[in-house]
Amino acid sequence: MVAHNEARATPGRAPKGTLNETRFAEIIEAAGLEFAEKGYQAARIEDIAARVGILKGSLYYYIESKEDLLFEIADRGHSRGVARVEAEDPETAAADAPTRLAALIRRWTTMLPLNPAYLTVAERDIRFLSGERYERVMAKRVAIHRYGRSLIEQGIAEGHFDPDIDVGLATNTLFEALNASTRWFRPNGRLSHEELADWFVTLFLRGLRPDPPTA
Amino acid sequence: MVAHNEARATPGRAPKGTLNETRFAEIIEAAGLEFAEKGYQAARIEDIAARVGILKGSLYYYIESKEDLLFEIADRGHSRGVARVEAEDPETAAADAPTRLAALIRRWTTMLPLNPAYLTVAERDIRFLSGERYERVMAKRVAIHRYGRSLIEQGIAEGHFDPDIDVGLATNTLFEALNASTRWFRPNGRLSHEELADWFVTLFLRGLRPDPPTA
Repeated sequence: MVAHNEARATPGRAPKGTLNETRFAEIIEAAGLEFAEKGYQAARIEDIAARVGILKGSLYYYIESKEDLLFEIADRGHSRGVARVEAEDPETAAADAPTRLAALIRRWTTMLPLNPAYLTVAERDIRFLSGERYERVMAKRVAIHRYGRSLIEQGIAEGHFDPDIDVGLATNTLFEALNASTRWFRPNGRLSHEELADWFVTLFLRGLRPDPPTA
Repeated sequence: MVAHNEARATPGRAPKGTLNETRFAEIIEAAGLEFAEKGYQAARIEDIAARVGILKGSLYYYIESKEDLLFEIADRGHSRGVARVEAEDPETAAADAPTRLAALIRRWTTMLPLNPAYLTVAERDIRFLSGERYERVMAKRVAIHRYGRSLIEQGIAEGHFDPDIDVGLATNTLFEALNASTRWFRPNGRLSHEELADWFVTLFLRGLRPDPPTA
């Protein structure tokens, strides 16, 4: 299975015959919706195939097991997360930590509505991945957290953030609070995802800053 | 089904014959663990019965369907949540909003480790409840949120909290951030749940306070 996916990661090489990558992306999208709705363990390969309009047997041209789909969902979702945290323009990268953290919060929050099914599945069902695949996805999550953590550490070093803050608690709370918004935030005309991002920026920049000296 | 549960809610009356409430609590506990591990839809009644050491047929003496167990888990979990937010001592209830909110955050955070399986299931699988039961559980969730919301509104009225904050966003973020900690926080000797609560108090009290006037 690892060789299978290693092969897929190499441009121009398909793991099983000649794959249609657009169709494979549709299958992963359908699996994400099916897993999100039914749960990974209850979801059925034939229902995923039906969503795409192909036969179950044709789906096995692309994968060998349901877990292959879960891995692709979690791995691609986390790859997008890594790309999103790293997509910092040079001007922002040269700025102070509050500016950089605010930009990260906006990049992350505005990514969330792009594919909530992926996020639900990646968070909830990742524990069903086998050891090596689980480790591979978690390594990407660690990279995402390390990026957020480095900005908080920068802010402490600069004197902008409270040195008494536990950086690990702050980093986990940051990403979990942002991600959890997919469970409750519905853009309803009153508030947009940009306004949600504004609130998170306010909460975390204020929350990380030291208390002002008391008079 | 509703009558069944209405009956259970009446002290001294059992829905089906004479129930052993201690045993029923064990069954619900086992179902919580099984649902948390396998997912509601994939979990099997016989595995729940096996956890308690009874036969599947004996379990049906207590319930009529798997959904009965999901409802009991979600409903009892939310009832504990309502009780926890309302467990405010008179002195705190008479204090200002930052004091009251800090106390609420501490009460809620230190409740979380008491039964994480309930929280996982109540959050993730509540959507599988049928309409009337879903509404009944959600009414308790609304009561919990209303309590948190009222403290934020009190703080704005007192001038302690920023009037530009959207109270709905702040309330949802508060409970979701606290609840999400069950997914990542592991008391490891370095930090306790009390220290986790301290961090949440710092984050939210600072985050809700207006920015100091610039000199």
